[in-house]
Amino acid sequence: MEVLSFDGKVFKKEEVELIKEEPFTIFLNGKEFITLLCYPKDLRELGLGFLKSEGLIGSLSEVKKISFSRDEKDIYIEADISELEERLHEKRIVTTGCGKGSIFYFALDSLKCREKSVKKIYSYIVIQNIMREISRSRGNRSERGLHVCAIYNGERLIIKEDVGRHNALDKIVGYCMLNNIDTDDSIVFTTGRISSEILLKTAKTDASVIVSRSTPTNLAIELAKKLNITVVGYVRGVNLTIYSGEERITTSPSL
Amino acid sequence: MEVLSFDGKVFKKEEVELIKEEPFTIFLNGKEFITLLCYPKDLRELGLGFLKSEGLIGSLSEVKKISFSRDEKDIYIEADISELEERLHEKRIVTTGCGKGSIFYFALDSLKCREKSVKKIYSYIVIQNIMREISRSRGNRSERGLHVCAIYNGERLIIKEDVGRHNALDKIVGYCMLNNIDTDDSIVFTTGRISSEILLKTAKTDASVIVSRSTPTNLAIELAKKLNITVVGYVRGVNLTIYSGEERITTSPSL
Repeated sequence: MEVLSFDGKVFKKEEVELIKEEPFTIFLNGKEFITLLCYPKDLRELGLGFLKSEGLIGSLSEVKKISFSRDEKDIYIEADISELEERLHEKRIVTTGCGKGSIFYFALDSLKCREKSVKKIYSYIVIQNIMREISRSRGNRSERGLHVCAIYNGERLIIKEDVGRHNALDKIVGYCMLNNIDTDDSIVFTTGRISSEILLKTAKTDASVIVSRSTPTNLAIELAKKLNITVVGYVRGVNLTIYSGEERITTSPSL
Repeated sequence: MEVLSFDGKVFKKEEVELIKEEPFTIFLNGKEFITLLCYPKDLRELGLGFLKSEGLIGSLSEVKKISFSRDEKDIYIEADISELEERLHEKRIVTTGCGKGSIFYFALDSLKCREKSVKKIYSYIVIQNIMREISRSRGNRSERGLHVCAIYNGERLIIKEDVGRHNALDKIVGYCMLNNIDTDDSIVFTTGRISSEILLKTAKTDASVIVSRSTPTNLAIELAKKLNITVVGYVRGVNLTIYSGEERITTSPSL
């Protein structure tokens, strides 16, 4: 589109590309379930990942059919969902109310998250290198508004992007489901802040480490300590800070 | 708290302060309405502003009583709310489903937003100066994870902060309600991206300009053009870009 750009001296007309944001509706077993605002890429992954993060589906074997509307703005997912799960989900919505970025349900979420033991260990160098790769993948100016999320399981690195950091993580979750990628004790990377909600969503992927360029909140750290998750923040250039679970990070560059 | 910090050479223990994030529950006329995760400051403003942004209350005259629980984690608001408004709100939740940062209801929202005429005009210099002031107010490293939002009506500048950019804007809305500040044709500033949701929330404050360090999405611009709202993005140093409604921005430094 044409914009009016000022460089400190003159205003001039310029062509720029905007970040795409589109409504995307998930239908579950024939019923409209939710409309997300998202970056319209990897929508199969987003649909599946969202339902998994919400606790409605566990694995791909529960999914019977996935199809799209012709314009690809709607996804239709048929899955084996117990009446109990559906009722619990409805109850959760009714009980806690809902709003923009504001559902909070410690009780139910913490039931689904188990305390992690220390199995895999990662080098801080690996973390820095991956963060650099993510920063590079954010690309040019027009793309800077996108959040990037990644998962690394010691072997594979998967990177996804979206206008929302929750969506980006859901795309990762959906991708790993579709491609049968083991996320147990992996590292989740996010370009956004580490809030309690992202910490809980990370815990549900079975990752044991979360890494960000930004800083965590006190509530995220409280949860991380309870679930024994490693939080590494402020990963910028040569710097980084370990906020919890330091036993999973070695100073050896080779792991 | 104590963290393990790496400066490129050695790991060392360091004391840092974390950003506070706390659950905050709004009770409306005796019923639990929603729990927000927020930065625990300006909670009266947040409670009122949230209800106003959701379309449940219009002005302070509809509010009969505001009180807090002893630990200040709950707010109790009593207000004149018509059965219709409450039913519409419930319907909206049920119809569209809900999730993290994902409610979307064009139809209802666009009913509440009128197309703006061009009444006030602002200089780009004023915009740059205020953005600089906001950046300064973000403070030191420990505070960098907070989103800052501001409103400027040509006379007064109000700045609020929160872990969420929606909460920060709601705090502004609540503050202006409580202090009888005219927000008509004002400028809203945000440190976050300009998504369609923030654009709609801005439109509901009766502001006619939204400004950000970051870039808008295509959907935000589509809505801005429909509602005749000026979008100024990428305000960094001497640079800025006008995406829509350029007739409200002059190149004169004096306005």
